[in-house]
Amino acid sequence: MGLKQSLVDKQAYAVILAGGVGSRFWPFSRELEPKQFITIVGKESLLQNTIRRLSGLISAKKVYIITNKSYFYELKKQIEKFKIPENNILLEPEGKNTAPAIGLSARLIEKQNKDATLIVLPADHYIKDIARFKSALRQAILCAQDNFLVTLGIRPGKPSTGYGYIKIGHQSPVTSHQYRYYTVEKFLEKPSLKNAKRYSADKRYFWNSGMFVWKVSVFMEELKRSLPDLYSQLSLIQTHEDISKIWPEIKPISVDYGIMEHSKRIALIPADFGWSDLGSWDSLQELLPKDKKGNVIQSDSVDCGSQGLCVFTKSNRLIATIGLKDVIIADTPDALLVCNKHKAQEVKNIVEYLKKRNRKEHLVHLTDKRPWGSFTVLQSSDGFKIKIVEIEPKKRLSLQSHQKRAEHWVVVSGRAKVTRGNTVRFVESNESIYIPIGVKHRLENPDTVPLKIVEVQTGSYLEEDDIQRYEDDFNLRG
Amino acid sequence: MGLKQSLVDKQAYAVILAGGVGSRFWPFSRELEPKQFITIVGKESLLQNTIRRLSGLISAKKVYIITNKSYFYELKKQIEKFKIPENNILLEPEGKNTAPAIGLSARLIEKQNKDATLIVLPADHYIKDIARFKSALRQAILCAQDNFLVTLGIRPGKPSTGYGYIKIGHQSPVTSHQYRYYTVEKFLEKPSLKNAKRYSADKRYFWNSGMFVWKVSVFMEELKRSLPDLYSQLSLIQTHEDISKIWPEIKPISVDYGIMEHSKRIALIPADFGWSDLGSWDSLQELLPKDKKGNVIQSDSVDCGSQGLCVFTKSNRLIATIGLKDVIIADTPDALLVCNKHKAQEVKNIVEYLKKRNRKEHLVHLTDKRPWGSFTVLQSSDGFKIKIVEIEPKKRLSLQSHQKRAEHWVVVSGRAKVTRGNTVRFVESNESIYIPIGVKHRLENPDTVPLKIVEVQTGSYLEEDDIQRYEDDFNLRG
Repeated sequence: MGLKQSLVDKQAYAVILAGGVGSRFWPFSRELEPKQFITIVGKESLLQNTIRRLSGLISAKKVYIITNKSYFYELKKQIEKFKIPENNILLEPEGKNTAPAIGLSARLIEKQNKDATLIVLPADHYIKDIARFKSALRQAILCAQDNFLVTLGIRPGKPSTGYGYIKIGHQSPVTSHQYRYYTVEKFLEKPSLKNAKRYSADKRYFWNSGMFVWKVSVFMEELKRSLPDLYSQLSLIQTHEDISKIWPEIKPISVDYGIMEHSKRIALIPADFGWSDLGSWDSLQELLPKDKKGNVIQSDSVDCGSQGLCVFTKSNRLIATIGLKDVIIADTPDALLVCNKHKAQEVKNIVEYLKKRNRKEHLVHLTDKRPWGSFTVLQSSDGFKIKIVEIEPKKRLSLQSHQKRAEHWVVVSGRAKVTRGNTVRFVESNESIYIPIGVKHRLENPDTVPLKIVEVQTGSYLEEDDIQRYEDDFNLRG
Repeated sequence: MGLKQSLVDKQAYAVILAGGVGSRFWPFSRELEPKQFITIVGKESLLQNTIRRLSGLISAKKVYIITNKSYFYELKKQIEKFKIPENNILLEPEGKNTAPAIGLSARLIEKQNKDATLIVLPADHYIKDIARFKSALRQAILCAQDNFLVTLGIRPGKPSTGYGYIKIGHQSPVTSHQYRYYTVEKFLEKPSLKNAKRYSADKRYFWNSGMFVWKVSVFMEELKRSLPDLYSQLSLIQTHEDISKIWPEIKPISVDYGIMEHSKRIALIPADFGWSDLGSWDSLQELLPKDKKGNVIQSDSVDCGSQGLCVFTKSNRLIATIGLKDVIIADTPDALLVCNKHKAQEVKNIVEYLKKRNRKEHLVHLTDKRPWGSFTVLQSSDGFKIKIVEIEPKKRLSLQSHQKRAEHWVVVSGRAKVTRGNTVRFVESNESIYIPIGVKHRLENPDTVPLKIVEVQTGSYLEEDDIQRYEDDFNLRG
């Protein structure tokens, strides 16, 4: 992380909340590939942006990330380059909102270091000015030393109805640590437009960013006081393995509603670093640079005379647009969204619709990520299916067999080590191999460069569930 | 064609003009697959609709079709079921507008039958009421017997600026053949909106449909009088083979401008059968049935609250739309159009843009039709390309070789007869075969069911022009 050790607060730990299942960036985000793991702004995923932003402030071994267990391999892959210890990944069997997630992280960090200060950060926010962000965090850390639950408040840039608001009381005098904070009068839910206009015009209101800083000891005291059941349940956890035992009993509740609203020692540190929770496509459009006509047009597109148009694409198709106004287009290989910019919130209705109909487009992309690499379904027809399968260096799929399909593999780059029945052979680039129905097989990349094969499946039934696994390097989904 | 012989006029011939290169239905239409050959309304292509509409009026052997020679195989395939003799297909080496095309047809039909009456019909129009259409044609045929150049005039349904207009003079008394016609005062180019409003409110103006009826002898007299050069050039043509010799010399000119505007014996038969020249996406939208919100939404789409929306798709992707107004979406596997309904004419600008940049999306679809079947490029990457190749029963590709690529073929349905080097073998479904670089090979479907193979090409250069052909059943593009 290119750490400047002088700046690192030795007691500071980051807790990154990466369990979100947000559907509002569909079709780019999917249930099994939510917003925090996809690249929306810049060249890395929102999670990676969030981690990188901490560089120089918190060392990698003090960064904890909590997510749903189904995202484990994706998370692991994404954080590999940051050298965050695998033990710092906390896996929730199911989402229980923010209080249990933060509580669990606090519990496990407290066992390491009773003097820890926690910086709680959502994994999927956008922050423009990183220097100002760090400066605000440093103030918040100082404030937390004075035993406050510190919340970062964002000065409203517009009358947004998409954020919760915080009403402040008074500003403190300059403390012994040379900073000032605001007392908090109350937390407010997402307002009506009328109220949002009133709040955003009034200097006593801030947006609730969901970013918090506190000493673990102070948080635990407040947790015990406000949510004693959750506190007792978390007290039973000694190791990662204990999580799944107590998790089913835990009641979902947000940290705002469960703790912050009841606490007498809240402080707000004002922040003005250019922030968005990226709650929908239009919020993304707002923060990207636009051409003269207010358009944001990515890559392979051609437009005639549109205004306020956004074209985002993850497909390699040409997109041509003519005379549109305030339209957002988000294109992927299997699903296209064309949306009035002012109705972007309704994307969640589309996702609900797909869910009800047992479709797949809300769930996964055509390219399905796996712990060993990925596969992309190119064509699915009666009697055959064509996939491109990519296997990362030194990874291998499970030893498996299929009852209803045969597979033809053509190696198009790299070299495959193929177990077929009782034999093992190497299949070079531009060679092919056939796996008959019922035969045990295993595909492995023995080399240090990626392996890519084209797989043609033939048979009467070609779904993923026709698989028997005998050995697997990845116990969840190999 | 299910002919009712009693209704067939023995001297009547149809001349279907199928050489159009219209770009306004892009991305559904492409330069090599123009509008007349694609299915836009109903279950058959516009050309097939045009032919089927003549059933009971003209026998198949009297239907002539003139098109560009590059469309020959596509045309042949499309008209196969109508039993139109191959000799009735006239191929233009290049488009020269309507007068030479009609003149050529007239010349060749005249040689068969000096007493022929020609019904000239564009291949790509929409006609709603076929009974009325036939009734208008019968009147026009009677009128042509009286030595008129007959034009079918459409009563304007709206002040369209997209059509030419015809101003009539007076109505004739009832003739001996028991019909009435209008004399024509003048032909008018596509008008301004102001003039279009004036014309459409005035009963003396009709739309120029481009549908004509005349005796071949009368047409030839008028051709000789108005376009003597063209007349002389066409006189040199004795057989199909002569066309390519004289064609380069021929000047392009429309039959309206070259003949109709100068002739003293024009008659107009009014027609009111529900007509559109399908000049653009919005004209298609106008004639399709709409839901309560004025939307036309095809197949696999989901909408939240749009109005006046049209979704047309030739891809198998899900299309989700939210809150759009008067938007046309036309989706294909390699190109998407999202267009303000009121700007649909500008699609031609997109096509021009693509042409200038030497793209492919204006030229061909991902599925490329060939005389022997078709192929679809599923993926084109560095070092490999994946295609689905479909070979029609009893057809075969050329005997060929490639200098820079090897090919892996997996048969997924049907059975292939494969020539490889000096050997011939049959490859059954779920078997594969490898064609090394440089080896002469031929793929054939020996059976009466379609053959489908998945082809994985590997090599450093994978363009279509790496092909050497040794034998070919189709001299144009096998």
